[in-house]
Amino acid sequence: MIKVRLDKAHLEENILDYQESVDKAHNWLHEHNGKGSDFTGWVEWPVTYDKEEYARIKEVGKEIHENADVFLVCGIGGSYLGARSAIEFLQGLYSDRKPEIIFVGNTFSSTYISQVMKHIEGKSVYVDVISKSGTTTETSISFRLLKQYVEKHFPGEASKRIIATTDKHKGTLKALADKEGYREFVVPDNIGGRYSVFTAVGLLPIAAAGIDIDELMKGSFDAMNDLSVREIDKNPAYQYAVARRVLENSGKCAEMFVSYDLGTTMMAEWWKQLFGESEGKEGKGILPVSATFSTDLHSMGQFIQQGRKLLFETVLCVGKPIEDMVFPGDEENLDNMNYLAGKSIDWVNKMAMEGTIDAHVNTGNVPNILIELPDQTAYSYGYLIYFFFLACGVTCYMLDINPFNQPGVEVYKKNMFALLGKPE
Amino acid sequence: MIKVRLDKAHLEENILDYQESVDKAHNWLHEHNGKGSDFTGWVEWPVTYDKEEYARIKEVGKEIHENADVFLVCGIGGSYLGARSAIEFLQGLYSDRKPEIIFVGNTFSSTYISQVMKHIEGKSVYVDVISKSGTTTETSISFRLLKQYVEKHFPGEASKRIIATTDKHKGTLKALADKEGYREFVVPDNIGGRYSVFTAVGLLPIAAAGIDIDELMKGSFDAMNDLSVREIDKNPAYQYAVARRVLENSGKCAEMFVSYDLGTTMMAEWWKQLFGESEGKEGKGILPVSATFSTDLHSMGQFIQQGRKLLFETVLCVGKPIEDMVFPGDEENLDNMNYLAGKSIDWVNKMAMEGTIDAHVNTGNVPNILIELPDQTAYSYGYLIYFFFLACGVTCYMLDINPFNQPGVEVYKKNMFALLGKPE
Repeated sequence: MIKVRLDKAHLEENILDYQESVDKAHNWLHEHNGKGSDFTGWVEWPVTYDKEEYARIKEVGKEIHENADVFLVCGIGGSYLGARSAIEFLQGLYSDRKPEIIFVGNTFSSTYISQVMKHIEGKSVYVDVISKSGTTTETSISFRLLKQYVEKHFPGEASKRIIATTDKHKGTLKALADKEGYREFVVPDNIGGRYSVFTAVGLLPIAAAGIDIDELMKGSFDAMNDLSVREIDKNPAYQYAVARRVLENSGKCAEMFVSYDLGTTMMAEWWKQLFGESEGKEGKGILPVSATFSTDLHSMGQFIQQGRKLLFETVLCVGKPIEDMVFPGDEENLDNMNYLAGKSIDWVNKMAMEGTIDAHVNTGNVPNILIELPDQTAYSYGYLIYFFFLACGVTCYMLDINPFNQPGVEVYKKNMFALLGKPE
Repeated sequence: MIKVRLDKAHLEENILDYQESVDKAHNWLHEHNGKGSDFTGWVEWPVTYDKEEYARIKEVGKEIHENADVFLVCGIGGSYLGARSAIEFLQGLYSDRKPEIIFVGNTFSSTYISQVMKHIEGKSVYVDVISKSGTTTETSISFRLLKQYVEKHFPGEASKRIIATTDKHKGTLKALADKEGYREFVVPDNIGGRYSVFTAVGLLPIAAAGIDIDELMKGSFDAMNDLSVREIDKNPAYQYAVARRVLENSGKCAEMFVSYDLGTTMMAEWWKQLFGESEGKEGKGILPVSATFSTDLHSMGQFIQQGRKLLFETVLCVGKPIEDMVFPGDEENLDNMNYLAGKSIDWVNKMAMEGTIDAHVNTGNVPNILIELPDQTAYSYGYLIYFFFLACGVTCYMLDINPFNQPGVEVYKKNMFALLGKPE
């Protein structure tokens, strides 16, 4: 399903030599007894997820898909990146999908918030507010505005139009949702934000976009099974996990996630959270950065090719795109482009990829990891995401780091709350 | 107008000690006799620009603004990043501006291209195709599709609906535009793509969005004058240029451009091209990366705070946002957010910024450069961009690098052309 191709010329060690350290990490994950094991519920989630809730997600998703003009997904970090990246990856940036989906609650930008509030006027609005605790400031600010908006413009319909995805038992948002009679979905206790896209956090927005979440869950299930082998040579997730460490050992301190489709740009942002937040602690970690080619070859290409040699690239190659078209001929050929007439544009994209990998690896001396996915379907998406989850857990455990906490995120909040005068 | 505040605790050298090396760079730029001096036309551009062409840009911009449903800007790299970043910075992401502006010709993604071609159906379309030579493959592919579309759906109107921004005298696109009778604007010979936003390349799309380009040019003019002093202590652009080098000397190899507004995210992409493409050569340069806070504090914040210490941050602080609003009270206060009632949301954003800078600098040990801009107007935008141009030229000259070429971008093209079977 997924193939990882390593650029052996730039790997100074044999990845198979790391079997022992991979074994340890594999056991910590599967036996739930490594660092941060309270947050390893994602490992078996493709079988343990709540089937009753899942059926409700599909129902409510369908209702939103059919009735909303605008669906506002109100959440930050892992509470929006999974859903947004899945939807853009699977539907593209200019799909004719309804409803319009807007991600809010992820910024203090007064311009953004004001403009969105004007933008939704006169439209049929649904809101999904996503927060484990209900105390996330960015999310709470936008949600209060949206709640008041819905109550004013759709009197008596708030309990239909607002959905809360939050803790099962406790917290500010849970209490509010109970009181207001919102429909509720659960942010599980044993799965952190960046690992939450297969829970209601990700699935409800994805279903509301009209995507087949059964296929997506099937992909995650098959990945869970296929990638449960511990041998590095049989497990592409472990190949990726180890190759990152080997490249870091040889002096690379930044990893650039590269795709060849503008619709995959947000997946790169999701990936940056997954790896950066899991690994960037105790003064360790590879800096995760991203680019979308060939677009960004015309901005970052020069640096990659000839600048300081601190990067390696991880390239996502998707076999079959969502849409393709044949490049047409032209009688006059004033643009001299007839040499491509009759070719598919995706074929041109693939040639750009091949040419670029060759340029970066062989001329630019930039190590390359190629992740090959057959197509851009919900099934493949689910498979790929589980692949990344697993690779991330193992690669962090190899550094002896807890991949599942994020203690550093609290520091700015503490300072900010003091400046805002937040009561205890 | 612009203030640069340096986090002195993390600067291991006195920036004023670099006056001699700044003097050299200053002279190379202003006397046009340093490396790459053929491409330093931007230095005096705010006075030397073609006034007759400028008047035409305003006229055609107004025509597009009033008549187009969709305006397609067809270009890659410097031929789209300046315009797109200016428009998003000055109007925000959910402005109610007409026309819709879509950037194309910057990708081989068949999904993106196919979806855009469907999206424009039935709408009044204008196209600006931007390419110095007319041989840029990404741009030529989309432009052929758009040209055929316009000719089919608006018979006899192609010479009104298609505008070409290209070389003044020669090249494939120039010849095509002459033959088809398109209105033409000029990509100057002495200004490279990443320095082109004050030329027709940037100005026509910006004017078509309804932005006052007189104000923008006035900002660039004032910056040119204000920033013409050679003394580091009087020139914020040189303070920034030198601080980057000092931080690099002390071991930082990546610079993160940070803003606090989602509408500024594309300016970060523009900045990455400016600095990455100018500086990333001969194995040198600081890796340019970016984040938008507080959004990305919930993805990259952990790494910045506690991960490997390879970054410094350059934060753009804009005094007055495009729009602001007061956070409302709520009688029930179920969300416990009443402590912010009556505060402006932008004030909350500023407190988030202060708290974050403190967290990153003092707890995270991440050096900080703060660039303060009074507001988000066209004037300030013009000023800021000239500031970056100048800082970039000087900081690269301090490394003894030609800031104005990009030899490495050709490598992937050469490989790709071979794979595509492009005739000589």
